Amino acid sequence: MKTEIDRYEIRLAGAGGQGLILAGIILAEAVAIYDGRNAIQTQSYGPEARGGASRAEVIISDGPIHYPKVMHADVLLALSQEACDKYFFDLKPDGILIVDSGHVERLPSSQALRLPIMQMAVEATGRPLTANMVALGFISGLTQIVSRPSLEKAVTARVPKGTAEANLKALAAGWDAAEGAPKQR
Amino acid sequence: MKTEIDRYEIRLAGAGGQGLILAGIILAEAVAIYDGRNAIQTQSYGPEARGGASRAEVIISDGPIHYPKVMHADVLLALSQEACDKYFFDLKPDGILIVDSGHVERLPSSQALRLPIMQMAVEATGRPLTANMVALGFISGLTQIVSRPSLEKAVTARVPKGTAEANLKALAAGWDAAEGAPKQR
Repeated sequence: MKTEIDRYEIRLAGAGGQGLILAGIILAEAVAIYDGRNAIQTQSYGPEARGGASRAEVIISDGPIHYPKVMHADVLLALSQEACDKYFFDLKPDGILIVDSGHVERLPSSQALRLPIMQMAVEATGRPLTANMVALGFISGLTQIVSRPSLEKAVTARVPKGTAEANLKALAAGWDAAEGAPKQR
Repeated sequence: MKTEIDRYEIRLAGAGGQGLILAGIILAEAVAIYDGRNAIQTQSYGPEARGGASRAEVIISDGPIHYPKVMHADVLLALSQEACDKYFFDLKPDGILIVDSGHVERLPSSQALRLPIMQMAVEATGRPLTANMVALGFISGLTQIVSRPSLEKAVTARVPKGTAEANLKALAAGWDAAEGAPKQR
């Protein structure tokens, strides 16, 4: 049974080239096209984009989404120390902080979930570039904000030709890692 | 010499699978990362996404962008009749409407720019999927909202491996077609 979602804000932050925008698009499409909710997916580019930072946002709701940007994130993924430092303050007090333990050393909260995301990607597929899918699988498994079949369909529809298998493997590695963690949301 | 842009709203609308989101991302990255302006790029998914419609938005400014969604578009690209019918009313009175003449028959305005976008893509590259790059090249050449080298860099950085050449060809076909049209903006 699906529970109603009022407004759920997810921010994916790290460096350019880490595939965070693609992860955001896949999550939004899974939630909206296959799970039947509403979603808005956004990237904002300012001076920090020129410095190589990247940030993608997804807002999910069963009702209309009046303001399309993250105000107080329910989930923050930080793949770099810079992203963690910059966006932690926008996280809700009970929000979920997920960091790549190989790239974020100084943690702003003892509640942070530390996961060796890039290392898991390399182990699952041999390709560090699939770290975005590990992270997406972990966030989704943890929050259950999207159904697993919907997410897999969206990955298959959206990733470059010939890469679906590796991306699904990385996604599964992330989702499975979340099975061991206490469910959140 | 660069003129200041206060707020410029571009909406790309058509069907899923036409690559409009990728076109939006490339335009935003060209403008922001390579031309040094600010940009926000958004997709909203509601019931219409389940019907197969797709819409990407880009907002460009030299100042801060307070509201990240299109209110009154300066440019509307419509690759389907449905998109044209649905979004024409949000276009500014002096906004630019660009339609694929092979897919939009009923025009809401005598000022519409009709271009055989998909046919041009097939002629330029043999691949109808590059229609998004023809459209992006045409919009950019017409409005000069982004420099041509920046746009080419963003295309090369963002399209799937091995497809840069075809995508740049399609982009050039669109940009060159705009050279014949009176400059706008």
